[in-house]
Amino acid sequence: MWSKVSRLNEGQLLEFADNGFLVVPDVLAAGEVDALIGEAEKLYTTDSPGRTFESDGQTVRAVHGCHQTSGRYAGIVADARLLVPARQIVGDDVYVHQSKINAKRAISGDVWPWHQDFTFWNRADGMPEPRVVNVAVLLDEATEHNGPLLFIPGSHRAESAETVFSGKAGEKPEQDSWRQHLAAELEYTVSRETVELLSREKGIVPALGGAGSLIFFDSRIVHGSGSNMTPYDRRMAIFTYNSVDNIPVEVADPRPEFLASRDHAPLRVPR
Amino acid sequence: MWSKVSRLNEGQLLEFADNGFLVVPDVLAAGEVDALIGEAEKLYTTDSPGRTFESDGQTVRAVHGCHQTSGRYAGIVADARLLVPARQIVGDDVYVHQSKINAKRAISGDVWPWHQDFTFWNRADGMPEPRVVNVAVLLDEATEHNGPLLFIPGSHRAESAETVFSGKAGEKPEQDSWRQHLAAELEYTVSRETVELLSREKGIVPALGGAGSLIFFDSRIVHGSGSNMTPYDRRMAIFTYNSVDNIPVEVADPRPEFLASRDHAPLRVPR
Repeated sequence: MWSKVSRLNEGQLLEFADNGFLVVPDVLAAGEVDALIGEAEKLYTTDSPGRTFESDGQTVRAVHGCHQTSGRYAGIVADARLLVPARQIVGDDVYVHQSKINAKRAISGDVWPWHQDFTFWNRADGMPEPRVVNVAVLLDEATEHNGPLLFIPGSHRAESAETVFSGKAGEKPEQDSWRQHLAAELEYTVSRETVELLSREKGIVPALGGAGSLIFFDSRIVHGSGSNMTPYDRRMAIFTYNSVDNIPVEVADPRPEFLASRDHAPLRVPR
Repeated sequence: MWSKVSRLNEGQLLEFADNGFLVVPDVLAAGEVDALIGEAEKLYTTDSPGRTFESDGQTVRAVHGCHQTSGRYAGIVADARLLVPARQIVGDDVYVHQSKINAKRAISGDVWPWHQDFTFWNRADGMPEPRVVNVAVLLDEATEHNGPLLFIPGSHRAESAETVFSGKAGEKPEQDSWRQHLAAELEYTVSRETVELLSREKGIVPALGGAGSLIFFDSRIVHGSGSNMTPYDRRMAIFTYNSVDNIPVEVADPRPEFLASRDHAPLRVPR
């Protein structure tokens, strides 16, 4: 499991701890990215319960559970370049709680409003603690105008943001629907007032980078993304690595397997 | 009418001719902008036929016809700092064909898809020629993330864009509705393929600037704007100055006065 080459250095870990996110440029080679894109396009055009659409009902928005259905994505989640840093950050053995490939299609790719991921995993899936990290793989270059991930640096530590994930694990509103966790109108968003308060110090920062770059981000960081106004898709895979000591508690009406994996076996880098 | 101080210089006129748009920073003083904002907020919260909403049905999207209903906006369209350059660009006496104050509200402000204004004025209003210019007044600072105007430089001259405004003045589809000229799903948009083709040379450029800045843009330039992801409104007034020698021809089912003014008297700077 130990890999010198894949490990984040102390500066990177400090940056992650301070800002709540970290961009590591150009980790995957062009050929690897092309293969992941080819597989993504297959999943986008194949009918499956984990596939969602923009409000036009036609433009694919995302495919969920790709590490469960695709050998190639199963391979990348166990790749040392993702898995070793994820273990460093979480500080434990990890498994993948959720995986998705967001499409953010050219012209039609819609907004993800400001939110914190842990809110969903805590309330809907019963995940006890934020001992979990996201690793995003940029499949296309992320630029200012194609709807890049936007972060409020430091917001993962903000007490003022706590309100949005207060409540016990597994507690959720009556009318909660997992379909609303995946649409442009999210169930749990962060208010305008909170975004204003949190962004006063360090502003709003886009995570830009070339295809094959990785973005690590905290499960509590307040983030979102705008519309894609360019004529090019901005595809991105996101894998959620959770500590094996942080297995979700049982909840009533659990979300489908493609949103909350029940396979909690620790991931190992293949030898 | 002649005003040395308000005239665009040769460099600015060349830049406008070449790119199809021109940003002139910090023209209006803070106090003037504040007064325009105060009036805009009154119009946003007052029921009127020229007021439109985002798809949520609650968030105001724009108010049209402000130069007809507000003395303050009637004053600013006759202000030498807007009117003199508009006359320089059009090369004629001008009147205001259309005016609007776009709200692009914090968090909720939605997309304007890629389009050319002249298409609407030509097809829906019967405007014969593109002898017309837009002058936008930034009421708030325009930044990368609050949905600034995005332009494809040079696209006003592109033959490849002509398709979207071919057809005779006054010709329009059976189902054409002026309400669809004002929503996030526009009637006449420019295709992804055309945006790609046109942006290959000079890319996509945001028009950024402080409150009180002016943006002049050609009626044929391909433009749009993204979502506003910031916690602050990005309000902008836009005035359309048309040549008095380019009066629209009669059309069947003309749009309301607040979208296509029937007052064609040439504007004069008050003495």
